[in-house]
Order: sequence, then structure tokens, then C-alpha cells
Amino acid sequence: MPENHNPVQTTEITTRAEAVIRRCLRLASFSEDAGSTRRTFLSPAMRACHEEIARWMEPIGAQVRIDAAGNFRGSYPALEPNPPRLLIGSHLDTVPNAGAYDGILGVVIAVALLEELRGRRLPFSIEVVGFSDEEGTRFGIPFIGSRALVGRLDQELLCVRDVRGISVRRAIEQFGLNPENISQAELDKNTLGYLEFHIEQGPVLEKLNLPLSPVDAIAGQSRLEFTFLGRANHAGTTPMHLRRDALAGAAEWIGMVERLAQKVRDLVATVGKIEAQPGATNVIAGEARLTLDVRHSSNEIRIRAAENLIRQAREIAARRGLSVREITVLNQPAVAMNPFLIREIEKAIVKTGCQPHCLVSGAGHDAMILAEKVPSAMIFVRSPGGISHDPAESVTGEDVEKAIDCGLHLLEQLAASPEFYNPNSTKG
Amino acid sequence: MPENHNPVQTTEITTRAEAVIRRCLRLASFSEDAGSTRRTFLSPAMRACHEEIARWMEPIGAQVRIDAAGNFRGSYPALEPNPPRLLIGSHLDTVPNAGAYDGILGVVIAVALLEELRGRRLPFSIEVVGFSDEEGTRFGIPFIGSRALVGRLDQELLCVRDVRGISVRRAIEQFGLNPENISQAELDKNTLGYLEFHIEQGPVLEKLNLPLSPVDAIAGQSRLEFTFLGRANHAGTTPMHLRRDALAGAAEWIGMVERLAQKVRDLVATVGKIEAQPGATNVIAGEARLTLDVRHSSNEIRIRAAENLIRQAREIAARRGLSVREITVLNQPAVAMNPFLIREIEKAIVKTGCQPHCLVSGAGHDAMILAEKVPSAMIFVRSPGGISHDPAESVTGEDVEKAIDCGLHLLEQLAASPEFYNPNSTKG
Repeated sequence: MPENHNPVQTTEITTRAEAVIRRCLRLASFSEDAGSTRRTFLSPAMRACHEEIARWMEPIGAQVRIDAAGNFRGSYPALEPNPPRLLIGSHLDTVPNAGAYDGILGVVIAVALLEELRGRRLPFSIEVVGFSDEEGTRFGIPFIGSRALVGRLDQELLCVRDVRGISVRRAIEQFGLNPENISQAELDKNTLGYLEFHIEQGPVLEKLNLPLSPVDAIAGQSRLEFTFLGRANHAGTTPMHLRRDALAGAAEWIGMVERLAQKVRDLVATVGKIEAQPGATNVIAGEARLTLDVRHSSNEIRIRAAENLIRQAREIAARRGLSVREITVLNQPAVAMNPFLIREIEKAIVKTGCQPHCLVSGAGHDAMILAEKVPSAMIFVRSPGGISHDPAESVTGEDVEKAIDCGLHLLEQLAASPEFYNPNSTKG
Repeated sequence: MPENHNPVQTTEITTRAEAVIRRCLRLASFSEDAGSTRRTFLSPAMRACHEEIARWMEPIGAQVRIDAAGNFRGSYPALEPNPPRLLIGSHLDTVPNAGAYDGILGVVIAVALLEELRGRRLPFSIEVVGFSDEEGTRFGIPFIGSRALVGRLDQELLCVRDVRGISVRRAIEQFGLNPENISQAELDKNTLGYLEFHIEQGPVLEKLNLPLSPVDAIAGQSRLEFTFLGRANHAGTTPMHLRRDALAGAAEWIGMVERLAQKVRDLVATVGKIEAQPGATNVIAGEARLTLDVRHSSNEIRIRAAENLIRQAREIAARRGLSVREITVLNQPAVAMNPFLIREIEKAIVKTGCQPHCLVSGAGHDAMILAEKVPSAMIFVRSPGGISHDPAESVTGEDVEKAIDCGLHLLEQLAASPEFYNPNSTKG
């Protein structure tokens, strides 16, 4: 297969992009809620979703199964038997009042790529994966589906219950699956890697005027809770210079959080939640509680930023006669995407006529979990307005065209790279 | 009566101060709650309180009544019949979990001053007033007692109900009083003025190392609610420069509120309440709602400050791609105390050996209501730690001594001022 062969024509892509968008919208109609999309772990809507995707995959000769963790797995055969296997996918569950593309687009694009192979077999099989849970909507714990693939859907997690008291284990049984078979969902040694197309869910590609980007890394996260303590007092009888106003101190610190993050490239830091006590118009706040969320692809930069902000909070508190205490709620390291796959994605993006500008994913994704075991990589698709987790979430047909184009180039490149799919080979 | 005659001796004052404090603590035991003090409008505890004060006033020949608004009124006769009348008092109701001195101290000092006259009659009668409601704890509306004296306890207010559905009118009837007689509680034309001793409820006198101060004015208040609107977004996927963070804007503005108030003498401005929406650790706030409380003795300075802060909020919002809207919840003008009485209080304080440093009251008091009709003035007594509305509220014996001393000097000065008690006289 010559490397520079362009397997598709523009008019066809337009049709395919339209089909992808139509399919995403169709899957959005499989919902637990009337009038909006909510599709959680192993709900009846998820079964309908599985059945619909299976219908698409039958004509292309894929073997479909639902693994014991409720993940959709549709395998497209390779040239030879017992081949190595490349996974392409994303998640099929949604948040409440969801859009049509978060997760779903990655699964639907994977199916479209197999269709576009038009029966052609590659040196590796391709498995379309539609994860049963990435959002954590039903059980409050995300990544149930992808955890099963890396052997981390353990007994403890199986015992977690939803709001109705149904455990993960029981939900699996109620769906007609056997939780004893969860180990059969795990990746085998023949797995080459994992590719995930996903909407960016942020505004960067739109601002850069780019349809696609490779993802460098999934940012690490620090989450902390801060409490500034001062003295509650009468807002009318306490002169400014005799106050110990916890909220004024917290507000000064919020400014520092913002300025620090603005100074450090790619760092994001957010105070999203705040409460002042006693919380009355005419009472100076004696206590202010607020959260901090810090993310960066470099663990060192992220941890240093969080430490800086703790120190600055203490300095502000000391200067104002306040005290401050903080607790760390989450300290999750960054996950790097596979360098070989990133380079191949960059080449494929260049072949679509675009700049390969790498992004760091600020949000967590299934690729972060898969990367624990196999080379993993992501391709972001522009999110108009940066809008996600909202019915207004969208993609453009042009961008989906570019994504399919990029995916096909990428498959061809990988098919032409024995060093990728056959570790025993040497590049010729 | 020679003006510089000191009618009391120090050892006696000590005893009197101790008696005043003991009486305040005794009244604190008349409570609706076990283990803490709460005494609201016409509760059974209020009746016990009235009876106790009446017992103190009988030996000094005062005539005691409870007016139709539930105010305690104890009249000490003058030299002549049909005399003009000076009111001295404060309120007898409390907040929940109250201290022993807020309001009460002013009534107990008034009684002590009459006792210290030891039967001597002045050219005016003195009426001790213990207002039935200043805090507004029971009906959510303050100053029910003093409103009756200025003719503002109207039908609308009589219909307001407490949490149990009992109206002010019904509460008056249940106490055995007749709401039809409320007009008889009003001040008559012979009223010379109103004096109120009250704890400062703030930290200023303690910082100035002064036991007492005259009150210049009761500050006006502006109360506003601000809403900053931005765009809620993912805290991980939205770079700093593409954010429209409503909470970051609100925090910047809180800093401006504080700095503006610090720059303008005697201005106080407070943000006591804040809420960010959606209010999650990992979501940039799309909305921040917060309150503003601004007070000053000059209406012009207060209104200009509020206008400045509205303008600054708009500037911050414009610069950050946010919008902001505000509503004014309260715009209450300042109330000046009577200049003649202020001067006389200053002289009396000097006679106690102290500096007469005038304060503005940041909190509202009954004197603010009485000032609508008669010359009114207040004397603040130092609040240790600035603590009030708390069981830890206190006064020192030394400061109460000074307050009684000051009150006796003041009564002598007024008794020696025909221009005060007899408008037809010319100063001799």
C-alpha cells in the first residue's frame, strides 16, 4: 500500500462526515430521560445503543460482543489469524443533559474508519471499543469500563452502589452479564495500543483555527480545599483597620491563583466553589472556604504551583491576622501519551493539510487509563464555543471530515510500520 | 445646684457599678431558652423582666406602666407638676444566645441614675424607657417598641406574623394589653429628648483606651446585591486567557471594596455573603452573587462610595468579558444626634476625667427612631473585645462607674440649663 495514496475523495468524506454526525445524534436519542440525553452504566438505553452500533458493524464483517464490564467490543479481522490488535474507541455513557458527541464521536468515527477500509485487511486487527462508563454519573466513580481493560475493576469497585442501592456487580448481573468473567475483558499481550478521537471540550482549537490536534499528555490534577479563618463581626461597628475579614483574605488569594496560572505556560488553576460564614450581608465573614483545582502536564510544575499557592495563602493570612488551613483532596499525576503514536498522528494531520499543534488534555479520558498498560494516544476534534456537557455541544462536518481523513492516514501509516505491529521486525 | 459639685464618691460608684452589672446578669436569666438568653417581644420572660425593674423603681417613687406597645415606662417626678419630660432608656429584648448588656445596660443605668438622685427632684421628670423590641428577633422587623413612641407602629406592622403565625396585634392582646391604645404610647409635646446608654458593640473604644464616648450620628446604610455573569466552563480544558470567570472578577472587586473603604475616613464597606455557580471544584464559575453593605455618617460619602463600587464592578466586568448587575436592597439615610446634647455629653465625659472622642454608630439603635421626633443622643460604653450578640459580651465595673458618673454630671448640667427644659427661658 503506497504511503501517499489518498484513499478517499472529498465528496465521499462529506457524506461520511454527515453520516457520523447523524449517527451521533441517533445515539443521543437512546436516553434514560425524556427530552434530554442521559445514558449511564448498563441502563436500558445503553443496551439499545449497543444494538444500534452492532447493526452498523455487521456489514463490515466485525465480530461484536459485550464484555463483562459492559463495554462494547467490535473486532475487525486482520490479514492473518492471531494478529496483534489495535483498539480505537471512546465511551458510550453520558452525563445528565448531555450533548451528542462527548465520547460517542470517538466510537462512531472508529466504526466509520473500518467502513472506509472497505473490506481491506491490515496487518493488525482493529477493535472498536465503546466504554460502558467514563463519566462516573451512575456510581460517582469514573472509568469503570476502561478500568476493566487494565485489570482494575476490583471487588471494592464492584461493591459501590448507586443512589438506588444497586451495586456495580448487581448492575452487571441485571444486564445479563457475569461479573465473574470481568478478567476476560482485560487487554491481552497482543494489544498494540489504543487510539481515541474525542471532542476537545475546550476552546483552544477554535481559537487556533485548527480542526484537530494530537494530545501530548493528560494533565495531572491537584484538588485542595482551603479554609481562611478570621473573626466574624458587625459590618457597621467594626472599622476597616480592626477587621479580620476571612472573605477579603480569600478574595486576595483568588487573585493570586489567577495571576500565578497566567504566568506559567499551560498551567490552569481554578477556584470554582466558595462559601463565607456566617454569610450575612451585615456580618464580616469569620470563615471563608474555597476549592482549588490545579492542572498541568508536568507533575513538577503542578505540584510547585500548588505549593506556591499554599504559601501565598499563608502569607496573606499572616498579614491579615487570619489563619488558613488546607487539605489535599486529589493529587493525580499527569499521563503522557505514547511518543511514537503522537508523531504518527502529527504526520497524519499534516497529510490532511493542517498544522499538528499538540494540546494537553485538561480533562481525564479513557486513554489515561489504557496508557497504564498499552501505548495510547488521542486526537482532539474542535469543540465549537468550547461547549461540552450541554445539549449545545457540537462538531462541524468539515472537522469530522478531517478527523476521518486523519484516521485513515494514520491507519495506513501504522500498517506500513512493521516496527509498530511486529516488535520482532526491524524497519526496512 | 453648683455645676461642679461632684454628687458621688468613688467607693459608692464602685458599689453602684457592681449593682448595675449584677442587675444586668439577673435580667439575662429571664429567658425563653434554657441555658442561654433570648427574650423577644412580649414573651413571658419579658413580663418577668418588667416586674423585676418595677421592683427596683418602687422605692424611688417612680410611677411604672407598660404601654400598649409593651414598652416599660417608669416615670420619676419633677419639682413641679406637669413638667417637661426627659426619656432615658434602651431596649429590653435580645437576640437569641445573647449577652447580658446589649440594650439592657442602658435601662439599668437609667434606673441607677434615678436612684443616685436620692429623692432629689429636677426641673423635668425623667422617664425610664425599656423598649419591647429593637432587635426584630420575633417578627423580623426591628424597633417595634420605639416606633410606637414616634407614631409609626401602624396597622401594617400590627399584622406582621411571627413563625408561629401570631401577629404583633395578637401578641399585644395575649400579653394583656390593648392594641387600640397604641397611640397613647406616643411622645407628647412635653418631651425634652431621649438619652441612651449602650454598649459600643465594636472595638474602637477599646483600641482608643476610652471607657465612654458621645455618639455623633447613626450611620446611614446602603445594602446592594451584585451578580457577576461570565461563562461556566471546564476547569481543565479552558486555558486561563480564554476564561470568563465570574468568581475571579468578583474577587477582584472585593479587593476594591476593601481598598476604597480603607481610603475614606470612617467609611465601612463589607462583602459578607458570596456564592459561585455552578459551584463545583472543577468548573469555572459562570455566576458569582455577592452582597455589599456600606455605611457612613455622611449620606453623600456613603452614596458616592456605593456608586464608585458599582462603577468599578462594571469596569472589572467589561475588562474581563463579564457582565454585572446590581440591585439596591436598602438605602437608609444617616441620623444625626442632637448637637446640644452631644456637647453636654462631651462636657460630662470631661468631668469624669476622660477624653470626649465622638463615635459614629455603625449599628442602628432606638435613638435613631426617637430622633425623628425629639432631640436624641447616645453614650457608648466600651465593649471588651468588641464582642456583642454573644454570651461573651461584657462590660467592666470601671467603665460602668464612668457611665454613671457621666450620666449624673449630664443630668446636673441639663437641670442647670433652662434653655434646655424651658424653651421660653433665656439663658441667664
